[in-house]
Amino acid sequence: MKYKIATLGSHSALQILKGAHDEGFKTIVICEKGTERPYKSFGVADKIITVDSFADFFKVENELIEENAIIIPHGTFTSVVSLDKMERLKIAHYGNKKILKWEADRNMCMRWLTEAGVRIPRMFDNPKEIDRPVIVKFFGARGGEGYFFCTNADQFNEKIRNAPKVPYIIQEYIIGVPVYIHFFYSQLNNELEIMGFDKRYESNVDSIGRIAARDQIALNLQSSYTIVGNIPLVVRESFLPEIFEIGENVVKASQKLEPPGLYGPFCIESIITPDQKIYVFEISARIVAGTNPFIEGSPYTALKYNEPMSCGRRIARELKLAIQNGRLKEVLG
Amino acid sequence: MKYKIATLGSHSALQILKGAHDEGFKTIVICEKGTERPYKSFGVADKIITVDSFADFFKVENELIEENAIIIPHGTFTSVVSLDKMERLKIAHYGNKKILKWEADRNMCMRWLTEAGVRIPRMFDNPKEIDRPVIVKFFGARGGEGYFFCTNADQFNEKIRNAPKVPYIIQEYIIGVPVYIHFFYSQLNNELEIMGFDKRYESNVDSIGRIAARDQIALNLQSSYTIVGNIPLVVRESFLPEIFEIGENVVKASQKLEPPGLYGPFCIESIITPDQKIYVFEISARIVAGTNPFIEGSPYTALKYNEPMSCGRRIARELKLAIQNGRLKEVLG
Amino acid sequence: MKYKIATLGSHSALQILKGAHDEGFKTIVICEKGTERPYKSFGVADKIITVDSFADFFKVENELIEENAIIIPHGTFTSVVSLDKMERLKIAHYGNKKILKWEADRNMCMRWLTEAGVRIPRMFDNPKEIDRPVIVKFFGARGGEGYFFCTNADQFNEKIRNAPKVPYIIQEYIIGVPVYIHFFYSQLNNELEIMGFDKRYESNVDSIGRIAARDQIALNLQSSYTIVGNIPLVVRESFLPEIFEIGENVVKASQKLEPPGLYGPFCIESIITPDQKIYVFEISARIVAGTNPFIEGSPYTALKYNEPMSCGRRIARELKLAIQNGRLKEVLG
Repeated sequence: MKYKIATLGSHSALQILKGAHDEGFKTIVICEKGTERPYKSFGVADKIITVDSFADFFKVENELIEENAIIIPHGTFTSVVSLDKMERLKIAHYGNKKILKWEADRNMCMRWLTEAGVRIPRMFDNPKEIDRPVIVKFFGARGGEGYFFCTNADQFNEKIRNAPKVPYIIQEYIIGVPVYIHFFYSQLNNELEIMGFDKRYESNVDSIGRIAARDQIALNLQSSYTIVGNIPLVVRESFLPEIFEIGENVVKASQKLEPPGLYGPFCIESIITPDQKIYVFEISARIVAGTNPFIEGSPYTALKYNEPMSCGRRIARELKLAIQNGRLKEVLG
Repeated sequence: MKYKIATLGSHSALQILKGAHDEGFKTIVICEKGTERPYKSFGVADKIITVDSFADFFKVENELIEENAIIIPHGTFTSVVSLDKMERLKIAHYGNKKILKWEADRNMCMRWLTEAGVRIPRMFDNPKEIDRPVIVKFFGARGGEGYFFCTNADQFNEKIRNAPKVPYIIQEYIIGVPVYIHFFYSQLNNELEIMGFDKRYESNVDSIGRIAARDQIALNLQSSYTIVGNIPLVVRESFLPEIFEIGENVVKASQKLEPPGLYGPFCIESIITPDQKIYVFEISARIVAGTNPFIEGSPYTALKYNEPMSCGRRIARELKLAIQNGRLKEVLG
Repeated sequence: MKYKIATLGSHSALQILKGAHDEGFKTIVICEKGTERPYKSFGVADKIITVDSFADFFKVENELIEENAIIIPHGTFTSVVSLDKMERLKIAHYGNKKILKWEADRNMCMRWLTEAGVRIPRMFDNPKEIDRPVIVKFFGARGGEGYFFCTNADQFNEKIRNAPKVPYIIQEYIIGVPVYIHFFYSQLNNELEIMGFDKRYESNVDSIGRIAARDQIALNLQSSYTIVGNIPLVVRESFLPEIFEIGENVVKASQKLEPPGLYGPFCIESIITPDQKIYVFEISARIVAGTNPFIEGSPYTALKYNEPMSCGRRIARELKLAIQNGRLKEVLG
């Protein structure tokens, strides 16, 4: 094939590059100096381009264009290429670039979710109004670092002092289990697929429960939310009809808010409560690292496909089909 | 094949239908209106029959019989088709129908476990006797909703007020990790197989540990046990001999209590304590949703089979072998 | 092939034997009387040798040698064959026997980690010095039984009374999430591979978080760390370059401390903190049970290999390649 698939060496690059290979593409990975090893070791990259920092992406953009590379965005890409620069991107980009600002700006994200009519946590504009558990989240895909939990204005004021100096939201903390829902929406056949589910593995909240309550209190233990990994999950089958509906409503809302809307892989970040209500607290409008447990496909893709179908491979498949049918422009944006 | 495989569209239907396809059966799914989408999207059903409510199952029973359908029971089926109606079932039914009342009535289930000689938690007939942590569980497969934890009679009396008005048991709460053990017992060759292990993902108990103890107390947080999903697991290999023995004892006891006994897929719900004791607190006498992580087979089925062998596929394999050998009647009941 | 693969029937034997079959070896498992069933049921052993106790291993050593068996060590093997006896082992042994004393003696293990220059928890020689949370760990691979948590000398003195009477270390308890890193280092091509990641499932610490803090305190709940199973995991991709480096430094240090050093499968036991620091608290210098979720390979081996590649199969592959190239002696030791 004339085209190659390229991505930044981080986040879900191994999956993206492997999936591209499986569909017959040559691959290129752009690595920060000293981080090339995984891409060499796992044999997923036909070419490695080294930069001092991902911020130098634009210095190698022309080289990528000469290679006929299509860039696949992921969480590291969207946090590195600032939104204003995103519009200056000249390289072929898989997915609707304009949608990415809707995930980066948490207020816009909440507007999107409201437009989709899904159930969302309450948002607090003023810390003084905090009357229940809340989580304070900062803008951009930062891997959860700095997020904090509090239950009133005093706690908020104490904890915000040591927090990163970037915009944030104050979001009701819903008591229930986190479920990350992975979708793929095809721009070619307008079909929505469920690709799988995971839960994050966050430091320290996913291990403080291993310390007895009495000891936690003696230690004055506080919670933090740095993402360290992901654990595979399946959900109760009776939730699936509603989950399809949520995914569809999010896509439809995006088509209205930012035509041609969201397509390709995306993730709905949810909490499911004891009374079986699904709260959506975030959208990631591109592949998420929560699909990494499924490099050989998930239990859900195994139902639909006769071969291992990761989210990364599904992207490459979509690009291949688009190229074969002369519709490539429809999936670049 | 003359026969088709049918099931209700919920619980573990995707796995059952996919498994049936893999073994060459045509499939039928009965869906409640508005819930058909997953079965269409994943392409596992050759025919979808829509009903207003699963309670209308008997209205479509004749249609299923005309299709030569064999119905595969699962947790939704056993909670929808009440036990007295179960006996009036005319459609071919995989497994021993009569065994299902032994799982639905928790007292009978405890009698079964006692007969099997496995280690069980203490049961309390009278709330006044509660002298340790207990969990109060309601009858039927209700996905854990309404279950509650308490440590004395006062807490019990307070919490029982808001509970569902159905029969319940008061069961000692064993401190240890939950392990759900998936078995398959073949009526054709009298062999017991271990199909895999999972842990449930319950709201809110599987996330309250993410809230620091001090905050939990400030919020007066209470535990609840609604099943939201399942997480795959393997167990320490040295437990396997004892686990085989438990499974075998449960099958043998069932053959005595309700001939021809339990066969097909079943689940032993257990807690394993720090001193490596296995407590059994429940049996599910049919496929459970805890096998859904293993639609492509589990690490254990991968040892025994040269192809992906889910529990759903194992059922279809058994039916195929029974049909091929003129022994179908032996696995219907 | 002339050679057979043998191991003790426990720990990760199913995986080792299955992997040996996949690579064309005949297999032998040595079982304690009454524990043969899993090895029969899963069909992984061509021959089962029964002993009264694993301590009788030396009574069957000659029989194994006559069969041209190569023994694969795992956690049960290293805890059964005491270190002084290990040196008297006459049977062909995969891996560097001498390295095993470095994992069994926790002080030597810490020296090894220090030599490797990796980040380690603080060690306390004297209980009186305990000024932060610590975990007290006993020598040998004992499945975590008896380990305890404390935060000061008084708690230590109280808990040490009921502890096993064997040597122990007092190790700083790092607050963060546990991540078990599985490596394979090939002595044939000097390549280091990442085989996957898991988290342990420990009784009771992995379930006490399911009990509300208030109830935990009422029950005076204490933590314990008995390993019951394992849960598959992937880690944030940006950690992989550092993880490769840690693995490489551990191998290099071993080559200096105990030539020819560590090779074959090994595990780095780590905690990753909220500020993304990786603390290494242990090395297992042979296959660990944490690779058992990956009998069909992990998401990471799926990247590198075109077939399911468990750690057990990787061992057999290495032996096959060594035999084919007349280099068997290099991987026995």
